[in-house]
Amino acid sequence: MSPEPVREALEELKTHLAVIADLESAAAVLDWDQHTYMPPGGAEGRALQLATLGRIAHERFTSARTGALLDAAEARGGALDPRSDDAALLRVTRRDYTKASKLPAEFVAELHRAASIGTHVWEEARARNDFALFLPHLERIFELKRREADYLGYREHPYDALMDAYEPEMTSREVRALFDRLVEVTVPLVRAIAARPAPRTDMLEREYEEAPQRAFGMAMAQAFGYDLNRGRLDTSAHPFSTGFGRDDVRITTRFGRSGLGAVFGIFHEAGHAMYNQGIAQALERTPLGDGASYGVHESQSRLWENLVGRSRAFWEYAYPALRRAFPAQLEGADADAWYRAINRVQPSLIRIHADEITYNLHIILRFELEQAVLTGALRPAELPEAWNARMASYLGVTPSTDTDGVLQDTHWAAGLIGYFPSYTLGNVASVQLFEAARRRHPDLEDQIRRGEFGTLLAWLREHVHEHGRKYSPQDLLVRATGGPLSPEPYLAYLKAKFGELYGLAAA
Amino acid sequence: MSPEPVREALEELKTHLAVIADLESAAAVLDWDQHTYMPPGGAEGRALQLATLGRIAHERFTSARTGALLDAAEARGGALDPRSDDAALLRVTRRDYTKASKLPAEFVAELHRAASIGTHVWEEARARNDFALFLPHLERIFELKRREADYLGYREHPYDALMDAYEPEMTSREVRALFDRLVEVTVPLVRAIAARPAPRTDMLEREYEEAPQRAFGMAMAQAFGYDLNRGRLDTSAHPFSTGFGRDDVRITTRFGRSGLGAVFGIFHEAGHAMYNQGIAQALERTPLGDGASYGVHESQSRLWENLVGRSRAFWEYAYPALRRAFPAQLEGADADAWYRAINRVQPSLIRIHADEITYNLHIILRFELEQAVLTGALRPAELPEAWNARMASYLGVTPSTDTDGVLQDTHWAAGLIGYFPSYTLGNVASVQLFEAARRRHPDLEDQIRRGEFGTLLAWLREHVHEHGRKYSPQDLLVRATGGPLSPEPYLAYLKAKFGELYGLAAA
Repeated sequence: MSPEPVREALEELKTHLAVIADLESAAAVLDWDQHTYMPPGGAEGRALQLATLGRIAHERFTSARTGALLDAAEARGGALDPRSDDAALLRVTRRDYTKASKLPAEFVAELHRAASIGTHVWEEARARNDFALFLPHLERIFELKRREADYLGYREHPYDALMDAYEPEMTSREVRALFDRLVEVTVPLVRAIAARPAPRTDMLEREYEEAPQRAFGMAMAQAFGYDLNRGRLDTSAHPFSTGFGRDDVRITTRFGRSGLGAVFGIFHEAGHAMYNQGIAQALERTPLGDGASYGVHESQSRLWENLVGRSRAFWEYAYPALRRAFPAQLEGADADAWYRAINRVQPSLIRIHADEITYNLHIILRFELEQAVLTGALRPAELPEAWNARMASYLGVTPSTDTDGVLQDTHWAAGLIGYFPSYTLGNVASVQLFEAARRRHPDLEDQIRRGEFGTLLAWLREHVHEHGRKYSPQDLLVRATGGPLSPEPYLAYLKAKFGELYGLAAA
Repeated sequence: MSPEPVREALEELKTHLAVIADLESAAAVLDWDQHTYMPPGGAEGRALQLATLGRIAHERFTSARTGALLDAAEARGGALDPRSDDAALLRVTRRDYTKASKLPAEFVAELHRAASIGTHVWEEARARNDFALFLPHLERIFELKRREADYLGYREHPYDALMDAYEPEMTSREVRALFDRLVEVTVPLVRAIAARPAPRTDMLEREYEEAPQRAFGMAMAQAFGYDLNRGRLDTSAHPFSTGFGRDDVRITTRFGRSGLGAVFGIFHEAGHAMYNQGIAQALERTPLGDGASYGVHESQSRLWENLVGRSRAFWEYAYPALRRAFPAQLEGADADAWYRAINRVQPSLIRIHADEITYNLHIILRFELEQAVLTGALRPAELPEAWNARMASYLGVTPSTDTDGVLQDTHWAAGLIGYFPSYTLGNVASVQLFEAARRRHPDLEDQIRRGEFGTLLAWLREHVHEHGRKYSPQDLLVRATGGPLSPEPYLAYLKAKFGELYGLAAA
């Protein structure tokens, strides 16, 4: 078959999909604005505008026209190189279309309403430490998500159906095995660290002014390669990254009263943003123009935040500039003391403030509780107790309030069940990717020590960013690193880094 | 007929129109962002997103479904009180629908493209003082606008068809008569003023820092009644006001290196914004949820900028605060000197910097040139010469470059032919409205002198703002002031104010 008919069918499909991409980008702008600049009075109207954009995009994507255009392009798709962007576009779009079409529009609207109300009630419940207030909404959300899993279908576990939105083709069984291995190694590691003297962290308790934090953080983000011609920083209650196409990818951070959390927030979000900025131009306004999965996305934020941004090599380069920005706050602390302070390991109650090691235990706890509620093994009413019991067993600490416990995250209220594993999968993948880049460029750490990040970014661009969603996360990782996702490089990294920091004997 | 069928038909129509209003609000957010925060790289994608939103909104509004819903509601509309919001909704929507349906979608897209390219080329032409570069685009735009007028239809003059977008049901003949009268009175007035000693304006040449300008300007805007719970100020290259529903209406200003232009920009845009904030909740997400016309909108901005913001009474109240904000810049200038400085009349080249009197002559010049080109009496190539000749005759000044002449405004490049008269109609109406409010509240000026603006705003809310587009601009003005649009109150105001300022004998 000549390539012409397939090209025509593809062009028609792409034009159709580009309109949907535009609607999604428009919604993302409205969402960004809602979290950065929107005056309080705008909330109600904005919710309606976002619902309208979401509904029109969903209607168009699940329309018979999408199906017909896909059918036509696929019928002629034999002419395509299976490794081409176009072949990938057909695969991914078909997959998205099949999934989206399984959910009745009415059910999707119901879920959005429940999540919207749930989020409002959760905010109040968290502020008032009142789990009972939130409980009926939580029950409703889990019930709906269970129905969603049934609509979508699954082989082994309803959790797989939900997690697929964040980690395509990943199974609970695989995640469970990986998490078991993490628990096996990190729980004793945390205990061993707890038995060692803690580093001084008094400099983190001091007050850091906003302007020099912003200047330092953004100077570093730009040095990493975050392109401000196609991006910008604003402030919001919770840091995030969002993009409206590859040429407008923005980040936010939050400036606290003490410590340099905003700077690490910038590193993290810049990692996400550089991923989107690096997606190939050819994938723009198609379903391929996004990250391969939430976990792969998180691998990029964690790589820049932790593997670069909390490394000894990086601070050998960056600490003099930080000291110049904050001479009073860092008085009497050298680069080594600083490095030790920002890498302190200490079991704590709040996930988003957790250190590199204990962070994953927070995730595993949530994964287990979500699975148990979804199968009916645990009732939502039993979540606070189950939460506290697991906190004690994994981390040795118990929240004294539900606000610091089961109510701390917005995810469940927003209907994001199956999302948490991506955070830890990202941590795990970040080390595999970094190690692969270092095998190719053995002097990578020396480069970082000199403040040179171009080689690392170029490697990530070539092996991760530019492909967008062209490859499945699994394929992407094999292509980039030579092997599938594995916890061992990550565990070796944790043991080496924190073994050195805390003077532990090599296992 | 029972009210139920009409209510049902109306509800269905309103639901349909609300979706279109949401799309338009979303586009307005994207447009606001594009002028305030968007990084340069985002321009291309943003143009595509805006085109998509515009196309979908236009398709939906001109769809057969809108026609059918309108037909159904109108067929049952006999049950409606003709003075009700619902009856007005049917009238205005039918009018908009009939107009929009006259323009082929392809033609609308062509016009958008020409305006988009035209604006880009105009920017370059203005920067390079190169009218020849812009000319072919200007010719194309006038040609398309002439075609638009033919599509829309008109009785007397093609200009009427275009002006209708900004001033519904206004004719060139009416505008011409009003403008003739303005020329008749203001040209000699400007000459008489030129023969008098000029006030000192040295304090306007000084440098005013941004932060206290912002603080003072916004303190005043809030005192006027601009609600920051439903609004905010940002900066942009050209000041504007925009709304995404009545509960999120934003303004921008621009901070120059000298003078207090940013403050008067805030007053002006806050006047626009308070109009939208005051539209009745019941009109939200309907075609009635906007200003009655561009002229009526401008009457609100001019009222707060000039009739309040450049009045003696206002500065008796506000000058002490301004002096506290800028003690060095205002050293040796009392409230009277300040009042005289900001009201200096001086023929000048640039419309947006013109004083209250000469401003209208700039507008009249543009109105005449637009009409002449539209009828073929003048070729676009002849515009620079015609421009300069009229500048000399109306204002006694001649631009030495096209950048300061025919290339100064973006309107023609953007396809906004027929728009300029609204500026002067707004000036004229602002005085009629202010006088009507003063007839009702004779102590209005004393209130302003005390910094009390609530009575004025409440009067405007009741007689202008809350009605949105429910009444035609003509009806609105008659209802609010007791009479139709007339230049006489405005001319009397100018003669009184500037006669006193320049010590002219009363005519």
